[in-house]
Amino acid sequence: MSLKNTRAGNYPEWYQNVISEADMAENSSSPGCMVIKPWGYGIWERIRDVFDEKFKATDHENCYFPMFIPLSFFQKEAEHVDGFAKEMAVVTHSRLSMKDGKLIPDSKLEEPLIVRPTSEAIIADSFSKWIKSYRDLPVLINQWANVVRWEMRPRLFLRTREFLWQEGHTAHSTAKEAEEETIKMLNVYKDVVENALATPVIVGRKPEHEKFPGAVDTYCIEAMMQDGKALQAGTSHFLGQNFAKSANISFINANNQPEYAYTTSWGVSTRLIGGVIMTHADDEGMVVPPRIAPYQVIFVPVVKNPEDEATVLEYIAKLQKELSGKTAFGEKIRCKTDKRDRKSVDKFWEWTRKGAPVICEIGMRDVEGGKVMVKERLKLGTPEGKEIIAAEDFVNSIADRLENIQQQMFDKAKARQNLNVRTDIKTQAEFQKYFAESNIWIEDGKAGKVAFVRGKWSGDANSEELLKAMKITIRCIPFNQSGTEGECLLTGKPGATTDVIYARSY
Amino acid sequence: MSLKNTRAGNYPEWYQNVISEADMAENSSSPGCMVIKPWGYGIWERIRDVFDEKFKATDHENCYFPMFIPLSFFQKEAEHVDGFAKEMAVVTHSRLSMKDGKLIPDSKLEEPLIVRPTSEAIIADSFSKWIKSYRDLPVLINQWANVVRWEMRPRLFLRTREFLWQEGHTAHSTAKEAEEETIKMLNVYKDVVENALATPVIVGRKPEHEKFPGAVDTYCIEAMMQDGKALQAGTSHFLGQNFAKSANISFINANNQPEYAYTTSWGVSTRLIGGVIMTHADDEGMVVPPRIAPYQVIFVPVVKNPEDEATVLEYIAKLQKELSGKTAFGEKIRCKTDKRDRKSVDKFWEWTRKGAPVICEIGMRDVEGGKVMVKERLKLGTPEGKEIIAAEDFVNSIADRLENIQQQMFDKAKARQNLNVRTDIKTQAEFQKYFAESNIWIEDGKAGKVAFVRGKWSGDANSEELLKAMKITIRCIPFNQSGTEGECLLTGKPGATTDVIYARSY
Repeated sequence: MSLKNTRAGNYPEWYQNVISEADMAENSSSPGCMVIKPWGYGIWERIRDVFDEKFKATDHENCYFPMFIPLSFFQKEAEHVDGFAKEMAVVTHSRLSMKDGKLIPDSKLEEPLIVRPTSEAIIADSFSKWIKSYRDLPVLINQWANVVRWEMRPRLFLRTREFLWQEGHTAHSTAKEAEEETIKMLNVYKDVVENALATPVIVGRKPEHEKFPGAVDTYCIEAMMQDGKALQAGTSHFLGQNFAKSANISFINANNQPEYAYTTSWGVSTRLIGGVIMTHADDEGMVVPPRIAPYQVIFVPVVKNPEDEATVLEYIAKLQKELSGKTAFGEKIRCKTDKRDRKSVDKFWEWTRKGAPVICEIGMRDVEGGKVMVKERLKLGTPEGKEIIAAEDFVNSIADRLENIQQQMFDKAKARQNLNVRTDIKTQAEFQKYFAESNIWIEDGKAGKVAFVRGKWSGDANSEELLKAMKITIRCIPFNQSGTEGECLLTGKPGATTDVIYARSY
Repeated sequence: MSLKNTRAGNYPEWYQNVISEADMAENSSSPGCMVIKPWGYGIWERIRDVFDEKFKATDHENCYFPMFIPLSFFQKEAEHVDGFAKEMAVVTHSRLSMKDGKLIPDSKLEEPLIVRPTSEAIIADSFSKWIKSYRDLPVLINQWANVVRWEMRPRLFLRTREFLWQEGHTAHSTAKEAEEETIKMLNVYKDVVENALATPVIVGRKPEHEKFPGAVDTYCIEAMMQDGKALQAGTSHFLGQNFAKSANISFINANNQPEYAYTTSWGVSTRLIGGVIMTHADDEGMVVPPRIAPYQVIFVPVVKNPEDEATVLEYIAKLQKELSGKTAFGEKIRCKTDKRDRKSVDKFWEWTRKGAPVICEIGMRDVEGGKVMVKERLKLGTPEGKEIIAAEDFVNSIADRLENIQQQMFDKAKARQNLNVRTDIKTQAEFQKYFAESNIWIEDGKAGKVAFVRGKWSGDANSEELLKAMKITIRCIPFNQSGTEGECLLTGKPGATTDVIYARSY
């Protein structure tokens, strides 16, 4: 019962099918925007909570800043950029009026407002008021918010005009402390994405031409999707004194001298959900890592004779209560009984398509034997896909079961990544031949035709053009450099010493 | 050490002082918008979490809908309103470009977009796609989001152009079920506002002219501020089939007939924080109910000799660990040690102004005696304001202490309300004389000059004008009607049977 489109058949359509069959999100009548539906939003809530706890544990506090940024805040930035033009939503009027039976924008604003694409500018303005002395530093804040980028080719979760994210913004009294913060938060990202989203990432620094505008250094975590393309899963920027200078964030340092602060920013977004889909979903639909599943265990009553219904539901209620008292990943088990007036087989397939980690089908036979029929989503279609076990054992081992599933999901994705980062491509010729091919989808346990290449880069000024021509990108300069010398895969020049990750990307 | 302005001195300025001294929020450089700072946002997070748990417990699921609503969605509504004109943020361009050294809006949109003032229209559009059969009903969803109303006289928390809120939206197969939902959620609001925000409310139905546009019935909870004015703290709307008809939310009912769905919506916002301030803060600053305090217990080390510092901090760390293992209101105790490099007396006053419920000052004497010096914010300045008790007793009784503070705060506000709802005003003449007076601030345990009047209303068509002329409003028609007959306080007509709450308001 696979989806209308499979990964091997039509990967982009498969991606849309997964989302619609799991009922996670849909396109809205508001152009280019998405509606995030309960199952998709529930996943986001879990992701948010895991990150939020880590942010607070590293002494960050949440705030909220205005989403409207006066146009003049962009003027300085624009003056430094040749042919500045940015896709942004611009508010120009503050009223809607009726004229000749038609609604029109009215009350033109003196200064247009930009709907935040990111909040460095408006937050730097606040920082400049908050920070006077080195005693006021560091300032460590985070914001959960919606942001807008005027995408022309929207795609659910990956690229929509409005999306949800978190943006951390910090200010420090020394460059060293700000650089440490940048790396610390990058490591928080790696930790959460690998351990909660079960999505392995490659960590590194962006090349100059891929940096966030205004950053001294941009660091990132990069994940490999099942079609071999890269997805940037999070970025952390060391901004040096750049934003501090333009917004005048200055402080009196310990030597009683005025100095500009050193700032950082870092963000992850609902795009991560697109990454989770393309890392874990299969031809039957979504597969959600237990740690971020809105419900980890679904009970489906299987009632043949209506007179048994009460007995079956009572048995399930008792099980659910016991289960809810247990914890996994340090949190209470989240479970739900699907009591809707539908066929049990349809319910089973619905929760399978949603990717609920564990589905328990409970009928009279289970009630009488004190058993539970357990189906793990990850084992769907395999001989181990169906277990009948004692209810007590099921309840007592739930944490192990969910933690095992989580680990298996990570291991599977990690194995795919390991198999598909080519390190044996040593010349420009081999490199060009490799990326001339195209992937459809990487089967589990196999190497795809095209995925990531880890190889040499000269850092030449014309790299951006060459990459564009090949429709590839440099994802990052990984932290663990080999230090060896070789031919630049991009330009063919000898003597290149920098290892980078080359890939197609989202 | 009271604030620059007191309630009796200058109530509006006092309100601003409370917020700035508690460092809860500030005006932003983005006109009419506020920055919600960590202490204010922390309070909002607690409020949000309490509501969210109740919404989920009543089977609602969270979603996210686009904040941009196409202008045409308002066309139908506008056609039904004479002289339609609404203060709303209108997005007309999707790009910012540089021309002659100046940034200008570019790429005009074919259809302007409105930044959501509320989401009925865009959510009804989704409902019309989701709902086909009575089996798809009810749909019970909620959204936490930012919304925009183009306020001309902004005031922190009470009226800002952008604010945060939740909006519940539901669809049902019968009017009865939708009406029950409307009242159920109104009761959830009353429960949370009274029990978590310690703010007593009066519950009722809005008169016709105060209803949400498009609603059949609007219900509300109304709170009394310390200056005797009313603050609408939450509303719940029964929308009948009005939105279903205009957005075509129709379904096949159990009799196989097409029918329009019955919808509801209900919301509370960051305005509640303004209500908490004006219910509980005093001339020394903010007072936060323990249940929504970001930190419930603050430890301030008092170190006279630097060599004692480690010992004091170690003692506090042990106490904090023990305390964090305890629960109050079903949640872990939230505590913090203020280790900043500041004078301990300044720290004490800072946390006092923030309204942290319990502040513990710990010095060597406490360490040696195994004691804790406990100061409750609510008892500041009274003989009981300072207790020295055994550490063990403090830890073991923390839940009782916080729950007592919570109850005292509610009781105090409830007593104020009881004393200040006048029910003895029986004629138009008395009524006009009463509201000719003006209040400054209602002292604890006393009746103010002007607050609420509970009395008769005829429901006359010219009521809105008469109310406007008197600068008062009808807050609600309370559920518990007396059924007696009397003179309409507004028009002077005899034979009025409806009891209403009259008041000035925010």
